[in-house]
Amino acid sequence: MDLKQITHADNVRLSDDGRAVRILDQSRLPNETVYLELSRAEDLYEAIATLRVRGAPAIGIFAAYAMYVLTLQSPADQYSTFVEDCQKIHAYLNASRPTAVNLRHMLDRMLAVAESMPCMDVLSIQDAMKQAALAIHQEDIAMCTAISEYGLSLVKPGDGILTHCNAGPLATSRYGTGLGPLFLAKERGIPLRAFCDETRPLLQGARLTTYELQRAGIDCTLICDNMASLVMKEGKINACFVGCDRVARNGDTANKIGTSGVAILAKYYGIPFYVLGPSSTIDFTCPDGDHIPIELREGEEIKEKFFSQPSALPDVKCYNPAFDVTDHSLITAIVTEKGICYPPFEENLAKLFSRQRKGGD
Amino acid sequence: MDLKQITHADNVRLSDDGRAVRILDQSRLPNETVYLELSRAEDLYEAIATLRVRGAPAIGIFAAYAMYVLTLQSPADQYSTFVEDCQKIHAYLNASRPTAVNLRHMLDRMLAVAESMPCMDVLSIQDAMKQAALAIHQEDIAMCTAISEYGLSLVKPGDGILTHCNAGPLATSRYGTGLGPLFLAKERGIPLRAFCDETRPLLQGARLTTYELQRAGIDCTLICDNMASLVMKEGKINACFVGCDRVARNGDTANKIGTSGVAILAKYYGIPFYVLGPSSTIDFTCPDGDHIPIELREGEEIKEKFFSQPSALPDVKCYNPAFDVTDHSLITAIVTEKGICYPPFEENLAKLFSRQRKGGD
Repeated sequence: MDLKQITHADNVRLSDDGRAVRILDQSRLPNETVYLELSRAEDLYEAIATLRVRGAPAIGIFAAYAMYVLTLQSPADQYSTFVEDCQKIHAYLNASRPTAVNLRHMLDRMLAVAESMPCMDVLSIQDAMKQAALAIHQEDIAMCTAISEYGLSLVKPGDGILTHCNAGPLATSRYGTGLGPLFLAKERGIPLRAFCDETRPLLQGARLTTYELQRAGIDCTLICDNMASLVMKEGKINACFVGCDRVARNGDTANKIGTSGVAILAKYYGIPFYVLGPSSTIDFTCPDGDHIPIELREGEEIKEKFFSQPSALPDVKCYNPAFDVTDHSLITAIVTEKGICYPPFEENLAKLFSRQRKGGD
Repeated sequence: MDLKQITHADNVRLSDDGRAVRILDQSRLPNETVYLELSRAEDLYEAIATLRVRGAPAIGIFAAYAMYVLTLQSPADQYSTFVEDCQKIHAYLNASRPTAVNLRHMLDRMLAVAESMPCMDVLSIQDAMKQAALAIHQEDIAMCTAISEYGLSLVKPGDGILTHCNAGPLATSRYGTGLGPLFLAKERGIPLRAFCDETRPLLQGARLTTYELQRAGIDCTLICDNMASLVMKEGKINACFVGCDRVARNGDTANKIGTSGVAILAKYYGIPFYVLGPSSTIDFTCPDGDHIPIELREGEEIKEKFFSQPSALPDVKCYNPAFDVTDHSLITAIVTEKGICYPPFEENLAKLFSRQRKGGD
């Protein structure tokens, strides 16, 4: 398998006829490689809710395409009713998962395109939305490349990198965010060693991260989540790289459940802990982690899913939060396509944002 | 199910004919309740190695019975050859698992019985060994009761207790060690809430701990290992109770993989972290955790066991340490049947030991 094929994996794109979203069904990896073409609203919603498409950036791209595809089905023939339909589609898709902010950001951006064209006919608005979705996708590729470059500058040849969940090409475009430096290093012949938390309950680390790294020929070792402390203690880890689903204004970061634990361990062992994600993951309307909604999922995912027999008796209750918030004080740096942001995050993220608004670097 | 039935569960005992060890096969819980009677050396060894019997105290009891049962098969008819056979059995069983020290301690004790009877006939030595094994079992019941009492004194009604792996009746006798305070509280009508790490890869927390607690009517919630940080942050946890497989002279504690991570999280969140175990778990010949051998097990346990399909591609390598060492600086107190031992552990454990040797309290 060629590295280019993996890092350019078209895990999310428009179908060839342009009327559906085509995805690689991540919920069936690594044992089955199944592509789906989705165009019904319920199917698009379900694909996000059941993690057929996952990873904050990939969800954002998918949502943009999904919104475009659904607007094609609108019977509206004039601006006002068409925009009303866009608003309904926005609200519907936005409810599919609560934690990742890219979903909302990209839906907002698509809606803004429609709302900004009051003098135009529906076909023109639809075309502009298609271009916007394609642009979101292209921008993500560029962002991942930049993030990977910045991330790679934080490590040295031979380093061991601990990862949690999956923030690779499948979760984004091209290189990925948290895994981006590993793919970029591989392209450049720089050896790095990855240790991948399996990431219970949905095993994204085992099913997706080792799948991507192994196919790319990158040295990777699968561990259970509870082994991270020991591998850190044994000196195998030089840095932790994780993605993010939402970063609050003060740097508090929501990411896959267990991320905060990894960060606390890293702090204890004196290992740098890096969050990597596009600036669209930063939610400046959110003051801190207490304001990030945490998605609770069914206990069945813990007790039954993936197992040949249930792991516990039927009446045992489960608590299954899908994300947690890593306190900003535990984060060494937040790496975006704009650069590497060190504490104090409130101040330095704001600077980044103001540069962004001014069209700066 | 009556609480007494659970807390007196005869998970390990001599068979009715006294020539085999009868165990509840823990590897098949909670979906199948299978009792085995084992008398062949290889089967007894395999039962420990494959965790049909597990939990440091239960392994110790099992090993004592196993050694007795195997000596019944010795063709020796005089002291010297019989003791040679005992030494061989000791060495064979002792190799079944490297980390837990109760195994060695109980085998040592059984061998010492044989070695101390040079003037006696083989039948008398065998009978003394049987009495020693039964005494080891009875002592464990008394120890678990005392440990549970001391442990219960550390919490208050309504407290949330985080547990890792299984240190209940199945792993010991009667109440258990780490879970003992919960069972004792239940008997006394004191409400406590347990949060149980599922404990990958072998799921002892899901399969065994919730099984024991739920059947006893104790409020318990199953979580994945990587959710411990969030439940602590949310204020659900007032104390952590874990068992132990070997405690070094300085208090460093080997226990199920992931325990050190729980301890680091507890320290970070300001939650007390208690280690509960019989004093036979303390290895005074071992200066610190660096001298405790850590068992490495097959990667298949991570990628395949329990799953209906492998969680990762066949060529993905795994690292599967079965235990880790929690640094003594992370432990609030070590609770044994002798009392609650606070830091400095090197000094206070030694005092405990000297009291023990003097036959003190």
